[in-house]
Amino acid sequence: MSGSVLGDLFKISTWGESHGKGLGVVIDGCPAGLELNEEDIQSDLDRRKPGQSPFTTPRKEGDKVEILSGVFKAKTTGTPISLIIYNKNQRSKDYTKLKDVYRPGHSDYSYDLKYGFRDYRGSGRASGRETAARVAAGAVARKVLAELGVKIRAYTASIGPVKIDPENTKIETRLDNFLYMPDQKAAKKAEKYLTELMEDNNSSGGTIECRVENIPEGLGEPVFDKSDALLARAIMSIGAVKGVEIGSGFKAAEMTGHQHNDFYQYDEDQEISKLTNNAGGTLGGITDGSEIVLRAAVKATPSIEKTQSTVNKAGENIELNIHGRHDPVIVPRAVVVVEAMTALTLVDLLLKQMTTRLEYIKKVF
Amino acid sequence: MSGSVLGDLFKISTWGESHGKGLGVVIDGCPAGLELNEEDIQSDLDRRKPGQSPFTTPRKEGDKVEILSGVFKAKTTGTPISLIIYNKNQRSKDYTKLKDVYRPGHSDYSYDLKYGFRDYRGSGRASGRETAARVAAGAVARKVLAELGVKIRAYTASIGPVKIDPENTKIETRLDNFLYMPDQKAAKKAEKYLTELMEDNNSSGGTIECRVENIPEGLGEPVFDKSDALLARAIMSIGAVKGVEIGSGFKAAEMTGHQHNDFYQYDEDQEISKLTNNAGGTLGGITDGSEIVLRAAVKATPSIEKTQSTVNKAGENIELNIHGRHDPVIVPRAVVVVEAMTALTLVDLLLKQMTTRLEYIKKVF
Amino acid sequence: MSGSVLGDLFKISTWGESHGKGLGVVIDGCPAGLELNEEDIQSDLDRRKPGQSPFTTPRKEGDKVEILSGVFKAKTTGTPISLIIYNKNQRSKDYTKLKDVYRPGHSDYSYDLKYGFRDYRGSGRASGRETAARVAAGAVARKVLAELGVKIRAYTASIGPVKIDPENTKIETRLDNFLYMPDQKAAKKAEKYLTELMEDNNSSGGTIECRVENIPEGLGEPVFDKSDALLARAIMSIGAVKGVEIGSGFKAAEMTGHQHNDFYQYDEDQEISKLTNNAGGTLGGITDGSEIVLRAAVKATPSIEKTQSTVNKAGENIELNIHGRHDPVIVPRAVVVVEAMTALTLVDLLLKQMTTRLEYIKKVF
Amino acid sequence: MSGSVLGDLFKISTWGESHGKGLGVVIDGCPAGLELNEEDIQSDLDRRKPGQSPFTTPRKEGDKVEILSGVFKAKTTGTPISLIIYNKNQRSKDYTKLKDVYRPGHSDYSYDLKYGFRDYRGSGRASGRETAARVAAGAVARKVLAELGVKIRAYTASIGPVKIDPENTKIETRLDNFLYMPDQKAAKKAEKYLTELMEDNNSSGGTIECRVENIPEGLGEPVFDKSDALLARAIMSIGAVKGVEIGSGFKAAEMTGHQHNDFYQYDEDQEISKLTNNAGGTLGGITDGSEIVLRAAVKATPSIEKTQSTVNKAGENIELNIHGRHDPVIVPRAVVVVEAMTALTLVDLLLKQMTTRLEYIKKVF
Repeated sequence: MSGSVLGDLFKISTWGESHGKGLGVVIDGCPAGLELNEEDIQSDLDRRKPGQSPFTTPRKEGDKVEILSGVFKAKTTGTPISLIIYNKNQRSKDYTKLKDVYRPGHSDYSYDLKYGFRDYRGSGRASGRETAARVAAGAVARKVLAELGVKIRAYTASIGPVKIDPENTKIETRLDNFLYMPDQKAAKKAEKYLTELMEDNNSSGGTIECRVENIPEGLGEPVFDKSDALLARAIMSIGAVKGVEIGSGFKAAEMTGHQHNDFYQYDEDQEISKLTNNAGGTLGGITDGSEIVLRAAVKATPSIEKTQSTVNKAGENIELNIHGRHDPVIVPRAVVVVEAMTALTLVDLLLKQMTTRLEYIKKVF
Repeated sequence: MSGSVLGDLFKISTWGESHGKGLGVVIDGCPAGLELNEEDIQSDLDRRKPGQSPFTTPRKEGDKVEILSGVFKAKTTGTPISLIIYNKNQRSKDYTKLKDVYRPGHSDYSYDLKYGFRDYRGSGRASGRETAARVAAGAVARKVLAELGVKIRAYTASIGPVKIDPENTKIETRLDNFLYMPDQKAAKKAEKYLTELMEDNNSSGGTIECRVENIPEGLGEPVFDKSDALLARAIMSIGAVKGVEIGSGFKAAEMTGHQHNDFYQYDEDQEISKLTNNAGGTLGGITDGSEIVLRAAVKATPSIEKTQSTVNKAGENIELNIHGRHDPVIVPRAVVVVEAMTALTLVDLLLKQMTTRLEYIKKVF
Repeated sequence: MSGSVLGDLFKISTWGESHGKGLGVVIDGCPAGLELNEEDIQSDLDRRKPGQSPFTTPRKEGDKVEILSGVFKAKTTGTPISLIIYNKNQRSKDYTKLKDVYRPGHSDYSYDLKYGFRDYRGSGRASGRETAARVAAGAVARKVLAELGVKIRAYTASIGPVKIDPENTKIETRLDNFLYMPDQKAAKKAEKYLTELMEDNNSSGGTIECRVENIPEGLGEPVFDKSDALLARAIMSIGAVKGVEIGSGFKAAEMTGHQHNDFYQYDEDQEISKLTNNAGGTLGGITDGSEIVLRAAVKATPSIEKTQSTVNKAGENIELNIHGRHDPVIVPRAVVVVEAMTALTLVDLLLKQMTTRLEYIKKVF
Repeated sequence: MSGSVLGDLFKISTWGESHGKGLGVVIDGCPAGLELNEEDIQSDLDRRKPGQSPFTTPRKEGDKVEILSGVFKAKTTGTPISLIIYNKNQRSKDYTKLKDVYRPGHSDYSYDLKYGFRDYRGSGRASGRETAARVAAGAVARKVLAELGVKIRAYTASIGPVKIDPENTKIETRLDNFLYMPDQKAAKKAEKYLTELMEDNNSSGGTIECRVENIPEGLGEPVFDKSDALLARAIMSIGAVKGVEIGSGFKAAEMTGHQHNDFYQYDEDQEISKLTNNAGGTLGGITDGSEIVLRAAVKATPSIEKTQSTVNKAGENIELNIHGRHDPVIVPRAVVVVEAMTALTLVDLLLKQMTTRLEYIKKVF
């Protein structure tokens, strides 16, 4: 139980290091009868792939996914789906000089404390590259959800001090710039901000917002498996994320009950609707059919060329400049990872909801 | 799997409704040999108990815990520990008039969507009262951790717009006021703010901060079971929490890599230390021995007497004033719940860490 | 994770010692909408209860079950169901003289090896009394299955050398004698055999057979969660069981492929049927709708008054005669426990089957 | 949750079909610091491999295992170990003619009932070939156990009516004949028996016995996770196994308490020993340091050329002769699978035992 397994019913088991032979994931519990091919998965992986903009590492990673099992005649069979992405273009040599140095903001030191030693090549298992397996699994989860009309869309909501303006935001335009911001003006400003940071060999944090439309009602379980709790865990498990909020989030702390409560009313069709969505789509941890809205705070890329103070294993305080091919900002590439984690969480809750009512059982059997 | 089970090795299974016969928890996996008696648990429960200040509901709940199993001659035996708290002083009648109304900010509507019907007495399983079982289990977890010197302390960091000032904050004084704020000046202001809100039949949100000192190194597992991810899930599972952050949290989004990275240095004893703690005690999800710092945003009590618009099951839009005995702010009573959830998460990771190195196995066998 | 939790979706967490305050179980994941009251559970408990025949301990245990949560207006709500049975009529004093002695055939020694000490009162957690909680949970599982017409019936198939004869066996008559044998002639012989053994202060083993009719098709998961594998685990987890077999069982080892294979044919209604049922209702671990047939071998009660050689903690070899109130045979009281474990295993697989096809999901949502 | 995940702490997730691209397993939770290379695993796989005797299918399967992750500089890192075995020499065409036929003794029919359709090439996921992934994972588990001196040895105990004779049995000689019997005389007889069966186009069942020496004390958890219960599940999950017994097994049913109880005595070194081992190494489900002894009944290979009656999907009763390359007996190739399942079960319990005592925690931290 080294922490690489997620989900109870749609259970994924990921593996792989950034400079090993490859990485992959086994999905145990995908329902039978889903149409699935490699292109379905590849399109999500391509959004995570580096080398596509001035604001990601120029490192080229092919990231071609291969389905090894669990699909027969283009449909899932209900048995484990094994996905593999072979590593290409690794330069392990770059890292041997870092093997005795603890890079600030990386997990070099904490891994050594945990295991006594570590695979130091490109952060090994702690590399952001590990998220490729999440995205691959997430693409399958998303396909299951799409069968019910669920739509999951994340985007960059801020880069450093530059935030999207709700007035200028059109979610459909989020892929129209390198930073995946749905506000083109903000994107321009953010690009300028990043360019300056890069000249200073520095990097930037940012935030990601994710919206889920058309989610079935009733997802999430009372107490510990609330939909927002499991989403928070899933999103916070992405390496660089330092905070997660749902709906009103941290603003809720400054609001009164009367301000925060979403009032109900019957709409014209005599359907129940809410006047606001401070809850962010979940009440008591259970979805009510309104849009799920969540946000994640992402820290800046820790690998920077700018001089930092640190230590080596020889007992010395040293100055460190990390050369190499690093993203000046993680946020845009993490957007699809947030979508994947959201999809993986929701599909598991969807399957659980199948088992919560006797009347559902009688419908099926 | 209705979501009331938490933990892999220190596994708790909670049960109970606010207006049923009682509530409780079964702990499966507490190590044998721990000294434990009911007073150890009661003292934490007493901090959650209402009726102790002008800022909590005057409702009296005895909340006396009883140990039913798993302890022999004042020591845990390694077998399940069953804890029970019988309900007293319930007034179910208060709720029958609410059974056909969807209270804003409550889970009445989402429970009906999930299950088709609900136990409407005092929110049933969705009641904040459910957290008593968490606090009881958390007290046991905390005792295990205390054997290794771990200290978990949470406190109110803000009430509505009133925040504690780091300059005036002394963590030792956090229990010296009704609001559990470690800044006595801020506490005064917050009490005034609350008093005014209460006159308006309104309620307030706030934030809770939690600090863990002397945590063993190496806790947390790569990828999905990162210590911060599991903490986020645990904290977000508390009913009223809308956001969670670790270390720098949402501020990280505005910082550069050079600002955010915690630089290492050797201290006088040639021990590795960090100049800052933006990471909040965990890197790559694994504890490095520095203090864990996390924060939660808590929404305002949804039950307010101030008039709200909502709907009933008869298909009518109605005006609602919720009378009864409700907390004007949840935050102070939730402080010990945050501590409990933190303890439960960390003790599970502690037990997991026991199994991660071959050399540990050889030490024991 | 001390081993007292069973099931993934219909998850039970049991607790309690034979001479503690009581024992119980929390069921997390029972579907909402099931009619349930205490009588439903009590009737199964009464079959396990001692003191009802010359062949069980004359010890009286009231074994009254109480539902503490999860049921509202006589229906399950989908939230945890907590069941409690308070202990009555314990005589802990009987056991203090045994606290430094390792009783042969009991787990006194292995518990000390595991935990370093043990609750020695009446075997503590290792007591057969622990199965009362299983029976209580099993009664709920059985009620869910009964909604689909599933019928689970176990009975005594042999006591020592006395076996039921298929020619004389009528399953409906299984409760017509103290030994729960469906062959009344065999029952007579077995009673005689037991009476003689009791005079010699000795005890007997036996076998239990369990049949499940009308089980839905498709239950069981490939590879590790085969229905027969999970049934074997569930049945073998009953303290005194030393062997489990399905269908042809150990006889299969002596059969040829042509003898063992169950041939298919279309019956008059053009439904597929099998000419034999050597498989015992499960092929590849998946139910095919035919009757599930399994058998368990149960060892003799280890507590006997007849002189045994053993050791004490003082380092001495001693002679031991265990006085007290013990069953001369465990088998009849274990019959309902086998039914309970079967029901718990099957209901979990039933809930899992709900999630295995995309078309099922579309039926529900 | 399609049933291909096993273990709580040493968690394996297997995948693959007999005629897909390959099969494999991800191990999540192998302790860090174990020396591991591909040869360690290959030697176990080679024992399962067909084509090595007149009594296995002449089908050649290379079964070369490759380690894809989790090992760095020849040591396990504590992160997931991914193992892959690419399929070679598949002849899917052989199976297209069987796609509309339900083969007796196979899971064709039950898979169709479960999923609505199936991968019919060589039984797909239900193929015995699936066990290659178990053997690979088992080899790693076995290596962990070997670090503590644990020795797991299984062998063929009977083929059809031919049983090994304890008088002639030397466990060290078990690999000296094609059938893996530790009694060379019996092996000769069994070979003769099999040769005759093969001429009749038939197949045989048999039994496997497994012995575990030097097992640490205290493994196994009370109630549901008893060592014997988990072993029974693990062994019964092997496709062709119809029964499992521990120690005295089914003989226990005919024994008296005085016969069955293993009496304790102090040996010359004042160590506690047992005069017999009817318990089979586990009391109350917890190992006591004596040898674990278990037996499995294995049914005959269902694929036989001898004429059988069955049905096709077109609604017809047909005669079936299964041509192709099939083992006349599964038992010898299953011997290493039984060892693997035993190792996987015990290593998981070993890791759990690490967490059961407070004093162990204090030894490590």
